Amino acid sequence: MQPFELTLTEAARAIRTGQLSPVELTTSVLARIDAVDGRLGAYVTVAADAALDAAVRAEREISERGPRGPLHGIPMGLKDLIDVQGLPTTASSNVRAGHVADHDSHVAALLKAAGAVLLGKTHTHEFAYGLTTPQTSNAWDQGRIAGGSSGGSAVAVAAGAATFALGTDTGGSIRVPAALNGMVGFKPTYGLVSRHGVTSLSWSLDHVGPISRTVRDAALVLSATAGHDPRDPASVSGQTPDFSGGANLKGLKVGVPRNHYFEQVSPEVEEAVRRAIDRLAELGAELVDVEIPMARYIQAVQWGLMVPEATAYHERSLRATADLYAPDVRVLLEAGELTSAGDYLRAQRARTQMRDAWARMFDGIDVLAAPTVPMTAAKAGQETVEWADGTKEGVSDSYVRLSAPANVTGAPALTLPVGHDAAGLPIGMQLMARPFRDATVLRVGRAYEEAATDAGRPAPITA
Amino acid sequence: MQPFELTLTEAARAIRTGQLSPVELTTSVLARIDAVDGRLGAYVTVAADAALDAAVRAEREISERGPRGPLHGIPMGLKDLIDVQGLPTTASSNVRAGHVADHDSHVAALLKAAGAVLLGKTHTHEFAYGLTTPQTSNAWDQGRIAGGSSGGSAVAVAAGAATFALGTDTGGSIRVPAALNGMVGFKPTYGLVSRHGVTSLSWSLDHVGPISRTVRDAALVLSATAGHDPRDPASVSGQTPDFSGGANLKGLKVGVPRNHYFEQVSPEVEEAVRRAIDRLAELGAELVDVEIPMARYIQAVQWGLMVPEATAYHERSLRATADLYAPDVRVLLEAGELTSAGDYLRAQRARTQMRDAWARMFDGIDVLAAPTVPMTAAKAGQETVEWADGTKEGVSDSYVRLSAPANVTGAPALTLPVGHDAAGLPIGMQLMARPFRDATVLRVGRAYEEAATDAGRPAPITA
Repeated sequence: MQPFELTLTEAARAIRTGQLSPVELTTSVLARIDAVDGRLGAYVTVAADAALDAAVRAEREISERGPRGPLHGIPMGLKDLIDVQGLPTTASSNVRAGHVADHDSHVAALLKAAGAVLLGKTHTHEFAYGLTTPQTSNAWDQGRIAGGSSGGSAVAVAAGAATFALGTDTGGSIRVPAALNGMVGFKPTYGLVSRHGVTSLSWSLDHVGPISRTVRDAALVLSATAGHDPRDPASVSGQTPDFSGGANLKGLKVGVPRNHYFEQVSPEVEEAVRRAIDRLAELGAELVDVEIPMARYIQAVQWGLMVPEATAYHERSLRATADLYAPDVRVLLEAGELTSAGDYLRAQRARTQMRDAWARMFDGIDVLAAPTVPMTAAKAGQETVEWADGTKEGVSDSYVRLSAPANVTGAPALTLPVGHDAAGLPIGMQLMARPFRDATVLRVGRAYEEAATDAGRPAPITA
Repeated sequence: MQPFELTLTEAARAIRTGQLSPVELTTSVLARIDAVDGRLGAYVTVAADAALDAAVRAEREISERGPRGPLHGIPMGLKDLIDVQGLPTTASSNVRAGHVADHDSHVAALLKAAGAVLLGKTHTHEFAYGLTTPQTSNAWDQGRIAGGSSGGSAVAVAAGAATFALGTDTGGSIRVPAALNGMVGFKPTYGLVSRHGVTSLSWSLDHVGPISRTVRDAALVLSATAGHDPRDPASVSGQTPDFSGGANLKGLKVGVPRNHYFEQVSPEVEEAVRRAIDRLAELGAELVDVEIPMARYIQAVQWGLMVPEATAYHERSLRATADLYAPDVRVLLEAGELTSAGDYLRAQRARTQMRDAWARMFDGIDVLAAPTVPMTAAKAGQETVEWADGTKEGVSDSYVRLSAPANVTGAPALTLPVGHDAAGLPIGMQLMARPFRDATVLRVGRAYEEAATDAGRPAPITA
C-alpha cells in the first residue's frame, strides 16, 4: 500500500511510531495529485512547495519532540471558500478574480496549529450554490458528477489526493459529494464549528465539517476544529465533548423513517441502506419506526431561508458584476431579490416549528438512519431524474431532499459508505441525532465501520 | 397610609406578620380602582369578584400554613396581551372581539402558583404597536399621555390601582410608560422570561417584565416569572439567578454615554439623570465615559426588525379584518407588507454587529446609566416635539429612541424614578448591562433607591 492510500488514523499511527515521515506522506499525496487531478479537477490551487516545506518542518518537530497530535504532518485539502492567509479564496468564481485572503479562517488556523499540512484549495460549486461542482469529476466514474458543493474536497479524499479535507454544508454540500464518492462526510451541529473566515452561502444554514475516508478520521478532524469562537455569532460556547468514544450499540435506539427518506429513492440505494440498518441491529441497536414530522415543508423552508440570505450576502457584487457569475448561480441570486420579508419570516417560523417537532421525534430515538441521497452519482449534464411512479425531479432537488432537514434543524448528520450499485458507484447512509449529540452519531457510524470490511480505501483510479 | 399605597415589599411583610390580610389589601386596591379608573382608563377588564375570591383563598391558606412567598395575596394587573384562562385577551383591539383565552400564559400560571391575586387586564396600545396607549391617561396629569404600550399597567401601579403589574417591551413598552408615570419598569434579558401565551408584536424583540413601585418589588416579580420554558423558542435554559442581592456599589463601573443618550434630551431630564448618576458615584461607583457604538443605526434596525415581524404575525387578520385595526396600527402593519427580505436581512445583520459592539462596550463597564426617555409625558394629542436645535421629531420616535437599543441587543434595562420636572411630571433613569447581568442592574437600581427618600409612593391623585 502506498502512503496516499492510508486513512488519517493509519497515517497518524505510522508517523507516531516512526514508520512514516510527513515528507514521505506528503510527497506521495502530491504525486497522486499530479497523476490523477488532471482528470478529476478536484483542486483549484495546489501549493506543492509550501506543502513540502510544512512537511519538512513537521518532520523535524516530530523527530525532536514527537507529534502535537494526530493531525501533525497529515496532508489536507480545504474547500476554496475557507480563507488561508496569503492564498486566494476563489469560491470557484470569476467574481473573486485577484482575491487574496488577509487572515486565516478560524478552522484553517486551528488545523495549522494542529500541524496539518495544506496541499491546496479544492473546487466548490460556485459560491457553494449548487450540488454538482461542474469543474470536478466523480472519483469512481469521470463521466459522472462529483456532487456538490464540496465536490473538490470529496473527490480529492476519494482519489487519494488528500488524506482528509474540509467542506461546507448548507443543504447537503458535505454529505452529498461524500456519499457520491464513497467517502465519510460529517455536518456537525449548527454552531459547533466556527464559520469565521469562511465565505457564506446562507448563514443560518451554513456549517463547516470534515470529509475523510473513515468515521474515526472524521472524529479526529472534528475534535481539532470544534469549539467556541466569538467571531462567529452562531458559535456555541461550552465544553467541546470527546468525539472519539467507543462503539457499543447495546440499548441504542435507531429510528427508521416510515416516510420521506425512503420515498422516491432508487431500489439499489434503499436496499443497501436497509441492509446497513439491519447491520446496526445485529450490532445491538434497537430499530424503531418513526414518522418524519412536517416532511412536506422541508424543501420550502430550506429554499425560503437560503435564497434571500444568499442574495443578501452577494448584494453588492451582484449589483457590480452580475455577469461574472455562472448563469445557474446568477439566476438564483437574482431570484432572491424578489423574496418578501413575509416569505422569509414564514420560512423562519416554519423552521422553529420543525426544530421543535424534530426534538420531539428524538425523544424516542438516539439516532435516525436513512439514505444520504436518493440515487448514486448522476451522469454529467443530466438535468432530471424520473422515478418509478413517473414523476420527474431535478437532479439537484433530488440530491438536497434528504440532506436539507439536518440544515434546517441544525442536527448533526454523518454520511458513510454502505455499498455500491450495479454500476460500481458508492451508496451512502446518513445518521442524524438531536443537536449536540455529535458524539452519538460518530459512535454509531464507527460501530458500523468497524464491522465493515472495505472501509477507508480510495477509489480505484488507475494513475 | 392605606393598603393600596403599600409597595409590594411592604405589603408582603405586613401579610407575613399578620398585620394585613390579602382581603383587606385587595378590597383597598379594588376600591381605589373604583375611585380613580373612570378618569384613568388603566383597565380593560376588572375581575373584582374573582379577585376577592382569590384573596379569600389566599387569606385562608396563609392563616393555616403561612404565605407561599412574597407574592401570595398581592393584587396585580396583567397587560391585556397576556393570556389568562377564561378571560378575553383583547390586546385593546376590536380585532379580538369575542376572544377568550383557553390556557394561562406561562407567566400568568407562574404568578397564580405564587399566589398573586389577579385584579384584571390593563390597556395596551393596540397590539402593543405604539407608545401612547390612547385609552389611558397619565397618573400625574390626566391631560397627558400614559406612554405605551404598557400604559395601563404603568398607570394602574402609579395610581394605587394595582400593587404591581406585568407589561411587555418590544422597543421600550415597559420602560416608557413606567418612566412617564414615575414607576419602576424592568425589561429583563431576552430569553429570561417566557413569552408563551403572550400576544407577540415582534418575536425577536419582545420581552415580558414587571412594573412596580420599587426596584426591590421588581426583583421579587422577576424571581417569580423568570426561568426556562421550552414553549418559547427564545427561552434560555439554565439556573435562574438570585435577583435580590445587596446594594454595595464599591468598585462598580458605571458607564456614562458621551453620545446618543444625552442628545436631544430636555434640559430637565438631563439634569435629573446626571444628578442621579452623581449619586451613584457618591454611593461608591466609578463613572466611566463611554461611546455608544453604531448609534445612528439603532432606529433603522429596530424598525427594520419590528415592522416585518409584526406584519407576519398579523398576516391573516390583516387580510380578513384590516378595517378593525385603529388607523395608526393598520398603516404600520400594511407598510410591513412592502418590506423585502433583503431589508429585513440587512437589519438582522446590523443587529448582530450591534450586539457584538455593545458586548465590547460592556467589557469596560458593569452598567450603563442614561435617561429612559428624552422628555416627560407629552400632552394628549401632541404629535411632534421641537428640540433646542430646531429639529422636529415625532413624539413616538422620541420615546423609543433611548429604549430601543436594549431590545435590539437583548440587554437587561431598568427604569427608575429620579425626580420631577417643573410641571411635577416624573423623570426616569435607565440602567442597562450585558445580557444575563439582570441582577447587577437591579442591584444598582436598589442602591439608588435605598438612598432616595421618595421612592415607592403612588401618584397624588385625589380620589
